[in-house]
Amino acid sequence: MSHVFRDVGGGVCATPGIEAAGVAAGLRRGGGPDVALVVAPAPVTAAAVQTRNQVAAAPVVVTRRHVADGRARAVLLNAGYANACTGPDGMAVATDSAAEVGRELGCGPADVLVCSTGVIGEPLPRESLLGAIPRVAAALDASGGRRAAEAILTTDTVAKQVAVGVDGPDGGCVVGGMAKGAGMIAPGLATMLCVVTTDAALPAPRLRALLGLVADRTFGRVSVDGCMSTNDAVVVLATGGAARPPPEDVVAEALARVCGRLAEWLARDGEGARTLVRVRVAEAPDEPAAVAVARAVADSALFRAAIAGADPNWGRVLAAIGAGPVRVDPDRIGVDFAGVPVCRDGVAAPFDRSHLAALLEGPEVDVTVRLGLGDGRATVTTCDLTHGYVTINAEYTT
Amino acid sequence: MSHVFRDVGGGVCATPGIEAAGVAAGLRRGGGPDVALVVAPAPVTAAAVQTRNQVAAAPVVVTRRHVADGRARAVLLNAGYANACTGPDGMAVATDSAAEVGRELGCGPADVLVCSTGVIGEPLPRESLLGAIPRVAAALDASGGRRAAEAILTTDTVAKQVAVGVDGPDGGCVVGGMAKGAGMIAPGLATMLCVVTTDAALPAPRLRALLGLVADRTFGRVSVDGCMSTNDAVVVLATGGAARPPPEDVVAEALARVCGRLAEWLARDGEGARTLVRVRVAEAPDEPAAVAVARAVADSALFRAAIAGADPNWGRVLAAIGAGPVRVDPDRIGVDFAGVPVCRDGVAAPFDRSHLAALLEGPEVDVTVRLGLGDGRATVTTCDLTHGYVTINAEYTT
Repeated sequence: MSHVFRDVGGGVCATPGIEAAGVAAGLRRGGGPDVALVVAPAPVTAAAVQTRNQVAAAPVVVTRRHVADGRARAVLLNAGYANACTGPDGMAVATDSAAEVGRELGCGPADVLVCSTGVIGEPLPRESLLGAIPRVAAALDASGGRRAAEAILTTDTVAKQVAVGVDGPDGGCVVGGMAKGAGMIAPGLATMLCVVTTDAALPAPRLRALLGLVADRTFGRVSVDGCMSTNDAVVVLATGGAARPPPEDVVAEALARVCGRLAEWLARDGEGARTLVRVRVAEAPDEPAAVAVARAVADSALFRAAIAGADPNWGRVLAAIGAGPVRVDPDRIGVDFAGVPVCRDGVAAPFDRSHLAALLEGPEVDVTVRLGLGDGRATVTTCDLTHGYVTINAEYTT
Repeated sequence: MSHVFRDVGGGVCATPGIEAAGVAAGLRRGGGPDVALVVAPAPVTAAAVQTRNQVAAAPVVVTRRHVADGRARAVLLNAGYANACTGPDGMAVATDSAAEVGRELGCGPADVLVCSTGVIGEPLPRESLLGAIPRVAAALDASGGRRAAEAILTTDTVAKQVAVGVDGPDGGCVVGGMAKGAGMIAPGLATMLCVVTTDAALPAPRLRALLGLVADRTFGRVSVDGCMSTNDAVVVLATGGAARPPPEDVVAEALARVCGRLAEWLARDGEGARTLVRVRVAEAPDEPAAVAVARAVADSALFRAAIAGADPNWGRVLAAIGAGPVRVDPDRIGVDFAGVPVCRDGVAAPFDRSHLAALLEGPEVDVTVRLGLGDGRATVTTCDLTHGYVTINAEYTT
C-alpha cells in the first residue's frame, strides 16, 4: 500500500479543528509573546511523554495527572519561568491556570494540560499568567500555530513548526507540531516542549505507546549538552476528525516524520550551534549498543568543540567510545568525517586536512563510526560546542 | 601519635636519590621541553593506576606490563603526542623507548615505565623521542624536578609540583609529585599524568592498594569536562630509602595530601578555567551516593557555564541532581553558593543577588548541597566552563 507524505503549513493548526494563539504576558525578559494555548474542539484522545528528571516541575506533575485518563482538550504553555522548584505556590499556579483555561473553554480543569519553560526556581508570576488566559483564549484562531510556536521560545533563535499530510488508498490524516528546545537537550528528553496534533483516531493506550516509541527515536536521540531538564514534555492531541484515517503504522510514520524533523531542528538551533552534527554508528552489536556509542560521542564536549573548530579530531571520537559503556574492539573501529575516511582499523587513515576542514565548515556534518561488531545502527544528532553556548549559559539568569 | 606534615620543595626530586630532567625533542608544537625522565637509584617498589578507557594508548599497555612485577627504576614521559590509536608502530616506539632508557641507565627495559600525552592518532615521531633519551639521561639531576614537570605540560598553563615531608616520633618520610592535566579530566582519571616518589618502604601489593585508594579519592574526584582520556596514568616509585619510615597510614596521609593538592591544581588549571569549583555534597545516603551526586553537578556543562557567568543558578544544580542516578527527595534539598543559602527544601531561599555574584567572581567557589537523607559526604572538584575552553579545544590539532 503506497502512501504519499507531503509537507503542509499551519503547525499544530494543520489538524482541522485545532485552534491556537500566543500572547505576551510579561513573563519573558525583553518582552514578546510568552503564553501559548492549543485547543481542540472538544476533549480528545491525548498522551504525553515527560521528563524523567526526579526534580519535576509543577506543570509536569499536573499534566501527568490530567492526561492519565487519556483525554484532554487544551494545552497551555508559557516561557520565561520553568515553575520548577517552586513549592506549593508553584503547584497552585499550575493547577489554577489549568482551571482558568477550563473556565474559559467550558471544560473541566482535568482536560487542560500545562507546560512551562524558563528559569528554574523563580516563582512563576501568578497574576501575569492567570491574567493572560482570557486574552489568549480570546485570540484562539485556526491560523494561530505560528504565534503559539513563537510564544514558547526561550533561547531558541527561531520558531519551529512542522506539519505533514499523508494520503493513501486506505485513508489519510494530518500530523502537525511545534517545539522549542535550544539548551539542556539530552537523552531522555531535556528542556524541550513539543505539542503535536493529529486528526487520526487512536485509542489512548495506543496513542501513548506510539508517542513513547516515536519520542524515544526522535527527541530521545538528540543531545545538545547532556543536561536533562525538569520540564520536558511532548504532548499529543488526536482529534479523530479524519474522515478515513489510515492504518496505525502510517499514522506512526507521519508522527515520526514530524517529531524527527522537529528534533533535528532542536539540534540545529542548539544554543550557540553553527553546525548540525549527525553521529551515525553502524556495525554495532545491536541497536541499543549503537545508540549508546553514538550518544557517548555526541555528548563529548571535546568532540563537539573540535567540530566548532572544523577539526577532524577522530582521536576524541575513539576516546569517547572507549570511555563509554559498550565493549568495543579499538582495532576494528573506522571513522569518517563528512564522508572522508580519517581512521581505519583504529589508526589514522591518510586524508587531506585542509580539504576536510573546508567540508567541516558547513552547516551539517555527518560523522560515521563503524565498529565492525554486528548489524546494529543508530544516529544521534547534536551540534558543535561554540563560544555562543558559553555566552548564552553564563548569562542566562543574571 | 602526632605527625607534622610540612611542604617541601623539589617535586619528584624531594625524595632523596631521585633524579629528574626535562629536555626539548621537537615533539611539542611551538617548541620547549617535551620529554621528561624520573629515575630512582636502582629498581624500587612501583605501582601505577591507569586509564580505564578501552582505547588505551601504547604507553599505557607497556607500562601495565612493566609495572606488573611491582618494580621499576624510571619513568619516561613525553608531551605532544599521545601515542594512542597508532597501531603496531606506536607500540614499537613505546617498547623501544623503554629499552633505550634501560640501556642508558643500565637496567632492564621492564624496569622503565612510559607515559605519553598529546594528540591522539598521530604517529609519535620515533627518532625524535629515541634521540632525546641520551640527552635527557645525561641531564638527570637531583634538582631536575621542575624541568621534568615543565616537559609534560600540554594545554596546562603552569607546571605542577607538590612535595610533603612528614615527621613523627615513630618515623618520617617524604612524598613528592608532579602532574599535568588541563582537559579531558574526568572521573576514572582522564588526560592526566602524575608521577609520585617517596622514600617510604612498602611492599608492592600494599603500595598498589594504597595508590588505588588515594587516586580514587583525589584524581578520581576531579572533573573538567567528563571526558576520559586514552593515556592517564598515576605512577609511584617508592625507594624505601627513609631511615625510619612512619606507619603505613601516615604514608597514606602524605600520599593523599600530595595527590589531593595536585588534583585540585588540575581543576584550577582546567582548560580555560577562571574559577575552581568544589561541589560538596552532604547528607547523602552514603559516600558513593554523595560522590555520584557531586559528580552529576560537576559534570553539568550548564552549571559550569553559570559559574563562568558568576550566576548562582541553583536550579541547574537541582536539575543535574534530579537527572542523576541517586534517588533523592527534591523537597529536602538545600544548596549554598559560596556559603550563601540559595535553596532550602527544594525551593528558592532569599538572597542578595549582586552580593553573591561578587563572591562568585572569586578564584574559588564552594557549592554545597545537602540532601537530607543520611550521613554520606563527598567533594568533587571542577572548574567553570568558559570561552577559553572552547577556544582551546576548537583549535587543538589544526
